[in-house]
Amino acid sequence: MSIEILAKKMKNDSASMAASSVDTRNAALTAISEALIKNKKEIFAENEKDMAAAKENKIAEAVVKRLKFDEHKLEDVCNGLSMLKDLSDPLGKVTLDRDLDEGLSLKRITCPIGVIGVIFEARPDALVQIASLCIKSGNCALLKGGRETVNTNRILFRLIHESAVSVGLPENCLAQAESHAEIDELLKCDKYVDLLIPRGSNAFVRHIMDNTKIPVMGHADGICHIYVDDKFDETIAIPIIIDAKTQYTAACNAVETLLVNRRIAGEFLPKLAQALSEENVRVRGTKEVTDIIEGALGKADISGEVETIGDDDFDTEYLALTVGVKLVDDVDEAIAHINLHGSHHTDSIITTDDERAEHFMQMVDSAGVYHNCSTRFSDGFRYGFGAEVGISTGKIHARGPVGLDGLTTYKYKLYGHGQTVGEYASGKRSFHHVDKL
Amino acid sequence: MSIEILAKKMKNDSASMAASSVDTRNAALTAISEALIKNKKEIFAENEKDMAAAKENKIAEAVVKRLKFDEHKLEDVCNGLSMLKDLSDPLGKVTLDRDLDEGLSLKRITCPIGVIGVIFEARPDALVQIASLCIKSGNCALLKGGRETVNTNRILFRLIHESAVSVGLPENCLAQAESHAEIDELLKCDKYVDLLIPRGSNAFVRHIMDNTKIPVMGHADGICHIYVDDKFDETIAIPIIIDAKTQYTAACNAVETLLVNRRIAGEFLPKLAQALSEENVRVRGTKEVTDIIEGALGKADISGEVETIGDDDFDTEYLALTVGVKLVDDVDEAIAHINLHGSHHTDSIITTDDERAEHFMQMVDSAGVYHNCSTRFSDGFRYGFGAEVGISTGKIHARGPVGLDGLTTYKYKLYGHGQTVGEYASGKRSFHHVDKL
Repeated sequence: MSIEILAKKMKNDSASMAASSVDTRNAALTAISEALIKNKKEIFAENEKDMAAAKENKIAEAVVKRLKFDEHKLEDVCNGLSMLKDLSDPLGKVTLDRDLDEGLSLKRITCPIGVIGVIFEARPDALVQIASLCIKSGNCALLKGGRETVNTNRILFRLIHESAVSVGLPENCLAQAESHAEIDELLKCDKYVDLLIPRGSNAFVRHIMDNTKIPVMGHADGICHIYVDDKFDETIAIPIIIDAKTQYTAACNAVETLLVNRRIAGEFLPKLAQALSEENVRVRGTKEVTDIIEGALGKADISGEVETIGDDDFDTEYLALTVGVKLVDDVDEAIAHINLHGSHHTDSIITTDDERAEHFMQMVDSAGVYHNCSTRFSDGFRYGFGAEVGISTGKIHARGPVGLDGLTTYKYKLYGHGQTVGEYASGKRSFHHVDKL
Repeated sequence: MSIEILAKKMKNDSASMAASSVDTRNAALTAISEALIKNKKEIFAENEKDMAAAKENKIAEAVVKRLKFDEHKLEDVCNGLSMLKDLSDPLGKVTLDRDLDEGLSLKRITCPIGVIGVIFEARPDALVQIASLCIKSGNCALLKGGRETVNTNRILFRLIHESAVSVGLPENCLAQAESHAEIDELLKCDKYVDLLIPRGSNAFVRHIMDNTKIPVMGHADGICHIYVDDKFDETIAIPIIIDAKTQYTAACNAVETLLVNRRIAGEFLPKLAQALSEENVRVRGTKEVTDIIEGALGKADISGEVETIGDDDFDTEYLALTVGVKLVDDVDEAIAHINLHGSHHTDSIITTDDERAEHFMQMVDSAGVYHNCSTRFSDGFRYGFGAEVGISTGKIHARGPVGLDGLTTYKYKLYGHGQTVGEYASGKRSFHHVDKL
């Protein structure tokens, strides 16, 4: 079946998906969990095929690690399903309840977006998370996972889909695309698909954004910053920086640029460089940064670990054990740098001055603005959303980690008794706008 | 100054605009109101120039009426400014307040979108409304109004901008584009402009949507429906239909298609046709519709007022005294027709059966779903939003009439004391997610 026909069928089923009860949607999550556990041997066997192919194709070990779907990952996804089941229903919430006039009542009520296309990296646990978030939020989801886990995705998708339909959700609540060519077909389905969520490399996400009329939610770059103020606690600064850079280097919320107040540079930079060096993190700094580090630690000792770059070389998302370092005069210079060079993802300030922290958090135009903690906290699970379907650096609709709330919209219901606008325009009747919430 | 340079300056000022206090923003609204009243003679004189040019250019009378800016319109916009001032601050609202762990506190806080480009029709009152909505919501706004009111717009914009800056808002909180060519420049400013809101003809809005990477909010079509159920109150059905079609024919929320339950067609259609004919509304109906009407009223008597069309001829937004009429078997056929042929704007059901109404309102995928009232109520002023910046038929971000809420987004603020993700990943600490709201 072509993606267009599939998407059309999903659009047709989206109204009944939206009307499904939360009990049915929760029953689907339970059924999925049970089906995954019951069929785990078969799932693991399919995953072995993917793992073998990955080794044969000499795929990088860091990537291979993500392909793995074992007992441990199964337990994680089942915990996630259970957590999601416990979250309150995101649908049917009344967010505005207003009498426009006697007997003319307006309600704004949350509802699903409709049909969502999600294109994600080769991670079998991501398939389960995304499908379950879409089910809980009453959306139909067209899923395209990475090709390196095609066998695992196929069995996981079959079990998830069978479970959803078995409890009464519509046939086309979920569909899977398997070939890369189908992505281009999907991009043309603006008549049937309400939202696209692409996850993956910068170039891939930009390709999606530039080649479709469907609204796109997600992020291309993740250039996150930490600013170390001159009033700061050194005992927390270095551990936060090490965590933000090394805890999961390939993550979009890993730090890429450190901005250090010039007043503390002489004392702080050598200690920082030492700590980064112990974690095998390479420093790319402006000349004054590398001069200070080389002066304090000895040029020969840190050869190859420190590189001098220009003032304008701060637009790179390294996704590696490399960090950019630049000095600034004050918090305002840090804010200006971040708003110009950042990607509006997550930026943190390390300071003991709460007022300065508030100023930073107000002025930095990012989805996440942090005080005295690691940028790595920017994540739907850590925020308590159960899971996330992606992280948005856009400002329209949802921002930051996107959970159930970001997968809903609303509609206005107006209940009348024959009212016409003419009566109000002529002054015969008038609006009184009384909020009941 | 080129639009790109202007947009860049606005982006630079957007952080301080976002940080402005509600008192300052409200003071701007008061100052605008005072400046408009104080300079009304000058404004009216400039408007006279536009009116004279419009007459010279033989612009349609309905359009000319909208160009007029007189005492009455001035009173309206000043009332709107006062109403907007009284609305609570849309910024800085805490919509999530959650301890992720002891001493690690997450807050989701509303903030402005940033820089918004609004392209709107030749209506001077629209300029005041849009500028004031953007000011109240802390957004920088780049405004392009219709060229037919260029003189009125110029003076209004100058007074509004001077008033805003006089109370302390940043210089580039507002800017105006005057030439049509500048629209194409604006479409390329995706680096600086966060959102575009185009208002105008279907073709114009589609052109904008198809030619920019900036997110677009608005609507192209407004094909609204009224379904008349077989269980219905005839005394309200006809007045609602007449109001929805004739009260303001050129509005996007005017009804374009009537769906009538087949069981009541024989009795209801002739009465409906009679009422429509008295209001000079032309009926374009399927063969069974025109057969019934012509059979009852006499073909010769209604010649020219009734036209037979095909079953698939229901995708036209007439914006004129013309309405499409089709018969359906039941509410489900009406829902299916609306979801296929509608534009997800506003659709109404006329029925005495509340359960059927709820089913319709659940299943119809539109921004506004109404029971027993006119589609014309779909409007920011009538909803009590003070004013509207446009009506969105998209499902991303804001839906229906867009007021202050639709002009805001949010950011996540995370307050820590040195927390790192590594501590949580290793199990040394764990999240407890306690909501404080």
